[in-house]
Amino acid sequence: MIATAAKSAAPLYVTLADSLQGLVEQGTLRPGHRVPSVRRMALQRDVSISTVLQAYTVLENRGYLEARPQSGYYVRPRLPLDAPEPRMARPMAKASYVGVNDLTAEVVMRSAEPGLVPFGAACPDASLFPVKKLARFIGSAARSDAGALGRYAMNWAYEPLTREIARRYLHAGASLAHDELVVTIGCSEALNLSLRAVTKPGDTVAVETPAYFGILEIIQSLNLRVVEIPTDPRDGLSLEAFRDALERHEVKALFVMPAFQNPLGTCMPDEKKEALYELLAEYDVPAIEDDIYGDLHFSERRPKPLKAWDRDGRVLLCSSFGKTLAPGLRVGWVAPGRYLERVQRLKFTNTLGTPVVLQKTVSDFLRDGGYDHHLRSIRRAYQNQLHLFSQAILRYFPTGTRLSRPQGGFVLWVELPSRVDTLRLHGDALKQRINTAPGALFSVKDRYKNCLRMNCGLPWTPTVEAALKILGELAKGQL
Amino acid sequence: MIATAAKSAAPLYVTLADSLQGLVEQGTLRPGHRVPSVRRMALQRDVSISTVLQAYTVLENRGYLEARPQSGYYVRPRLPLDAPEPRMARPMAKASYVGVNDLTAEVVMRSAEPGLVPFGAACPDASLFPVKKLARFIGSAARSDAGALGRYAMNWAYEPLTREIARRYLHAGASLAHDELVVTIGCSEALNLSLRAVTKPGDTVAVETPAYFGILEIIQSLNLRVVEIPTDPRDGLSLEAFRDALERHEVKALFVMPAFQNPLGTCMPDEKKEALYELLAEYDVPAIEDDIYGDLHFSERRPKPLKAWDRDGRVLLCSSFGKTLAPGLRVGWVAPGRYLERVQRLKFTNTLGTPVVLQKTVSDFLRDGGYDHHLRSIRRAYQNQLHLFSQAILRYFPTGTRLSRPQGGFVLWVELPSRVDTLRLHGDALKQRINTAPGALFSVKDRYKNCLRMNCGLPWTPTVEAALKILGELAKGQL
Repeated sequence: MIATAAKSAAPLYVTLADSLQGLVEQGTLRPGHRVPSVRRMALQRDVSISTVLQAYTVLENRGYLEARPQSGYYVRPRLPLDAPEPRMARPMAKASYVGVNDLTAEVVMRSAEPGLVPFGAACPDASLFPVKKLARFIGSAARSDAGALGRYAMNWAYEPLTREIARRYLHAGASLAHDELVVTIGCSEALNLSLRAVTKPGDTVAVETPAYFGILEIIQSLNLRVVEIPTDPRDGLSLEAFRDALERHEVKALFVMPAFQNPLGTCMPDEKKEALYELLAEYDVPAIEDDIYGDLHFSERRPKPLKAWDRDGRVLLCSSFGKTLAPGLRVGWVAPGRYLERVQRLKFTNTLGTPVVLQKTVSDFLRDGGYDHHLRSIRRAYQNQLHLFSQAILRYFPTGTRLSRPQGGFVLWVELPSRVDTLRLHGDALKQRINTAPGALFSVKDRYKNCLRMNCGLPWTPTVEAALKILGELAKGQL
Repeated sequence: MIATAAKSAAPLYVTLADSLQGLVEQGTLRPGHRVPSVRRMALQRDVSISTVLQAYTVLENRGYLEARPQSGYYVRPRLPLDAPEPRMARPMAKASYVGVNDLTAEVVMRSAEPGLVPFGAACPDASLFPVKKLARFIGSAARSDAGALGRYAMNWAYEPLTREIARRYLHAGASLAHDELVVTIGCSEALNLSLRAVTKPGDTVAVETPAYFGILEIIQSLNLRVVEIPTDPRDGLSLEAFRDALERHEVKALFVMPAFQNPLGTCMPDEKKEALYELLAEYDVPAIEDDIYGDLHFSERRPKPLKAWDRDGRVLLCSSFGKTLAPGLRVGWVAPGRYLERVQRLKFTNTLGTPVVLQKTVSDFLRDGGYDHHLRSIRRAYQNQLHLFSQAILRYFPTGTRLSRPQGGFVLWVELPSRVDTLRLHGDALKQRINTAPGALFSVKDRYKNCLRMNCGLPWTPTVEAALKILGELAKGQL
């Protein structure tokens, strides 16, 4: 090694960094994988520990590695830097009632259909959830308090669970009391109750565009109107456009996903969240914050929820364990701020209570099931899958295809050349046993006809790659 | 025995019947208990089997015994024949929005509070549910299909469960296809989705009066108006008053509990259900039928649901296992007739799906858990408890107290002398650690101020009797 260093003009740690970078570029060290520990690498390459540390720091700065606390260094999944990102939408002239077409139901319904490649609904493969362990936890939760099955859960929340949720938010920078939380049937019920608490039928709600189609369906079912606010794939909701909408419409609430917005994957920067909160306060508008992807961050720290800036209880923070622990449990929550009593009352009328046995299951798992370890492992998996999906899409889809660069979560927003019609693509793909989520679902206006959202919650397999290739060919066939 | 028969002029079987009637009246044979089998009684009394059979038939006609198929003869719980029944309400001049007071929340919330005698909410004691067995079933349901935890339950219904529900309705006289059913989070969600499927905010819904206070809360939360239809404690909803309401209001739906109406316990006769259906058809109005107490019949046959007469899908049949198997599971259903697609869509937006592990638990229990045996045993228990509660109320409450005569279920409607204020009684009783459900909760008008609903789902104990005595004394103190 000394000889090598002497030959090159660069310091030893740079030489080492170059050599490792080569291994990443050749694919020997693969995205998402851990590189050897500092100690081991020092031994392997016969250099000092500090040289390895310097080399790893260089690679971190170059964007090839990332440090994860108490875990080591990992190869960072990277997108080709020149892949263009999707473009932001234009504002809406007036608020619209939602006319969601039957396609939403079809896409969602068929997402669990055996034999269909599930690119449609945003749901990771069941193999990524700790289902066997959870099944054991359910059994012991039921046996340890069988009496709970014989009672109505009319007190809404199982305290050990809400204490644990509050503790985790404190860690993420938002201080919540456990008794501010209402436990719901998944995030869906949390969103429903929140919208019902702050609006009356006929009211107008602002949503990011493109928007999670589920929220558009909920808004429709509650007879509310929508005004779509353009959202930048890089830093989220346009505050200028939102202010403009506040001036021009009687906006009664904002629905917003600051953490890894569905479908864009955007993470709103902290200063922007603060500014957004000030804007909400200025116009006295409540915000319904959907934080369901918050724990699926790729960078070191979990993003702070908008709720962290909430001084006067105007943020209704909604989430669930559906994307992290298990979608089948249907355990979610809402911290409704000043609307707590109203939401509790609505919870009572809507479903009375959330099954205590499932609340206890989640609570036990958070305490003893290795939840944080599991989170770290799925974050790595999702980041790696997003990387592989992105590469394949750039390879197989028509030239000119643009891709979002999600900073968390597991969905990708794909903008195809403008002549591609993703509704038609959806139909053609279904015939090939591939389910997709066409862009039209993500807006109440005629937008995103050449876009689609891709569920990258699926482990990379030849079937997945083949399906992406078929999709690309079908799209090319439209040009 | 021959000698005895010779002394009296009556035939032998009448003498035997008289003798057994004496044993019932002295309390040696107690209400709800099985009398010795025909064969055994013949042996005991040294008479022929046909004599015993004739004697039992006499006692059945006299109302002292009842035959239960494949089970034998039982002492029939009887109310003092002279106990007066509550009176029917007057019709409403115009439809009202619901202004449910905070008392509903209090009564319901405190129903699970330890140390309070739970006469308030309609919930049997947990000891009456097979909770330990259910806990085992939950564990094995979870382990046998752990994969289901990792998937969204977006297909709404677990087929083996819906097939079993449909089979049971067929037995009860209503023919349903399994795929007409939507599985919900308890009956609460079924009622919510049904109301939302057939109304818009501002619409008017007809309800029986007195009405289950939960439905009044749901109606309020959906911004609907109510018109209350007087309901006869003997045979249910007044068809004349309903026709009159249909003429005078734009009624968009009827909420009705033909089987053991909550709070009256009334069972609507078959011919009246048929006439009600014809009236609904004549005015083209849908009905939301709450059948949650249908399986808790005291007579031999389960009442046919109104749905059995439904020719054109206008009846939305709602129910759950909350009163029969376990309230904590939150598994209910709706057969929404012609509104199936709308209800499915609303289910998707409201809570996405009902946890499959709980659906499977119920389904497994219905198949292998001895559900019918369990049903028979709780029906006997409830009938017996209603008898004991009724007797104690007549003993301890002020003279002039009137009582409903439930033909199923486990709640009693108590009308006290008009000067008794049951809201005040509620407050006084709470100080003595007794929770009650005052009559005011059961109407949107100023009705039932001297009434209360009594939860008789509690096994008879000295504590229960003492609490009834205290209630009676508090009521007498108001006179």
